[in-house]
Amino acid sequence: MQRLINDPDNVVDDMLRGFLHVHGDRVQASIANPRVIFGKRGADEPARVGLVSGGGSGHEPAFLGYLGEGLLDAVAVGEVFSSPGPTAFLEAIRGADRGNGVACLFGNYAGDSMNVQMAIRLAEDEGRRVAIVKARDDIASAPKNAAEKRHGIAGGVLMWKTAGAVAARGGTLDEVIAVAEHTAQHTRSVCVGLSPCTIPAVGKPNFTIDAGHYEFGIGHHGEAGQYVAPLESAQKIADAMVAALLEDFGPQAAGAEFAVMISGLGATPLMEQYLMAAPVIEALQRQGHTVWRSYTGDYVTSLDMNGLCLTLLQLDDNLKSLLSFPASALGLASL
Amino acid sequence: MQRLINDPDNVVDDMLRGFLHVHGDRVQASIANPRVIFGKRGADEPARVGLVSGGGSGHEPAFLGYLGEGLLDAVAVGEVFSSPGPTAFLEAIRGADRGNGVACLFGNYAGDSMNVQMAIRLAEDEGRRVAIVKARDDIASAPKNAAEKRHGIAGGVLMWKTAGAVAARGGTLDEVIAVAEHTAQHTRSVCVGLSPCTIPAVGKPNFTIDAGHYEFGIGHHGEAGQYVAPLESAQKIADAMVAALLEDFGPQAAGAEFAVMISGLGATPLMEQYLMAAPVIEALQRQGHTVWRSYTGDYVTSLDMNGLCLTLLQLDDNLKSLLSFPASALGLASL
Repeated sequence: MQRLINDPDNVVDDMLRGFLHVHGDRVQASIANPRVIFGKRGADEPARVGLVSGGGSGHEPAFLGYLGEGLLDAVAVGEVFSSPGPTAFLEAIRGADRGNGVACLFGNYAGDSMNVQMAIRLAEDEGRRVAIVKARDDIASAPKNAAEKRHGIAGGVLMWKTAGAVAARGGTLDEVIAVAEHTAQHTRSVCVGLSPCTIPAVGKPNFTIDAGHYEFGIGHHGEAGQYVAPLESAQKIADAMVAALLEDFGPQAAGAEFAVMISGLGATPLMEQYLMAAPVIEALQRQGHTVWRSYTGDYVTSLDMNGLCLTLLQLDDNLKSLLSFPASALGLASL
Repeated sequence: MQRLINDPDNVVDDMLRGFLHVHGDRVQASIANPRVIFGKRGADEPARVGLVSGGGSGHEPAFLGYLGEGLLDAVAVGEVFSSPGPTAFLEAIRGADRGNGVACLFGNYAGDSMNVQMAIRLAEDEGRRVAIVKARDDIASAPKNAAEKRHGIAGGVLMWKTAGAVAARGGTLDEVIAVAEHTAQHTRSVCVGLSPCTIPAVGKPNFTIDAGHYEFGIGHHGEAGQYVAPLESAQKIADAMVAALLEDFGPQAAGAEFAVMISGLGATPLMEQYLMAAPVIEALQRQGHTVWRSYTGDYVTSLDMNGLCLTLLQLDDNLKSLLSFPASALGLASL
């Protein structure tokens, strides 16, 4: 295992220590137990709806890197690939609550869902208003007729962005939730994996991808995809990804405008992400769609997995306006 | 070779096609021959010194991703790990020249230096004023008493930032060059490699790092480092990197304020970059230094190399002010 770590059982705490050193001017934290990170707010900031997320570690910059202006207010931090407990979500809700309610926007996984629900019950006992939307963009994780079972992957970032813009503009909790839900419904993603990832405490991959092969539809924790095939050209892989997403959108997306997000999974060179952007965007254009904006970089990763997640968000004027609203994710590299 | 590419001989053009799809609203390009990318400027933008860089591909987001406000105006794009030709640099100089002179700020490698010099001679024949500064931050690439031979690695990004701020504030060419040179003189970097990288057209690594080992002082193209050793803890590796840099700074950096940049080399999970930030920053603090700001992310990469580059920039008030000047690198992921 070629990794820059100390004790493999302690990677989350060791990472958080570094995160606080790097971003300490913009966050405050309770990282003992439970682990929660809060964005600092100015004392004169107007009260508004709070945004909370959280999930397992190993997806950096998600989740904690999306703290920031116009984005998340508090993040519950779990162990590698494992949900934070209810107490962490509760603390995040408390920290984000400025009296205008809290939107808890997270990925649709059993553990996260259960723990968020428990946290909400406790928060409601304290008189807090909390509503949720689950990202469920991974089309490979369940069929379309069971779309409510789909997992949330990189597409959740776009939901934080649109919901964060509504909150920053002073929207109500209902308005924030409505936009988050609308965004989730119009976001679809699919991943390809070229190598497995290794949880440091495990020390070896819990699945394999043979050299010369790739896995289509792999999940953000290595969940089995739809098929394994001999590695093809970027062009062919891009075409297959776009075709799968468009088929899932169905006829209501004919001639649609899309935001396109290409996220590396942790060990994918940016050169290859840009290289894939070309056939992806060209395939969409060829089929009569418009690419309004595209995002390229490591937005949500899977430890050291080599591969890529392609996300499409079908746009309308409101979503475009919200995506254009200024935001600053502190975990995205800047200068 | 597990890569998302088409023809291995064509990765640069394929990447540029994607780059232009993603960032086409902010750049214009001549990517046939020579390959040059220009940031778009508003017609009403005041004339100011132009900033040019360039180098081999495979280091994305460098060099082309540092086009943007407060940063580079034009970038010459070479083949993978190989310098752009003089014509590319000449075109970049022409495109960046608004009559106030051009600063060409690039990494100290034989090929780049030769080609830039030829370009400058041709540009001067056209009556243009061009001055250069070479980044030479890699302390492992030559001893301190031959520091002028050192290569430029990730530290060059900070030079673009400070020089770009002077240019954006309306500084003269002499002032831009003075700050770039001052920044270069006070920037030192060292890398560790945990895996080799593979040039797609070659198809296999041109060097190896045995499993369970790491290479201290490796260059951005796999240039041999100072030693290969059994892989140690992040803490010990961080301590060794900080010690090497501080020793090279010498006594004039006692109690100094530093900007710290931790750049992944292409296949390094962000989790591990944050994890390394903790012992790096703590080692500096323990030795009486102040970390004024730190940067974490893939700033300059080496294709699919797993490893990390640590850069320290010794600060003064002027550099801090320049590093705080707003800038927007279009190749850094944003929302």
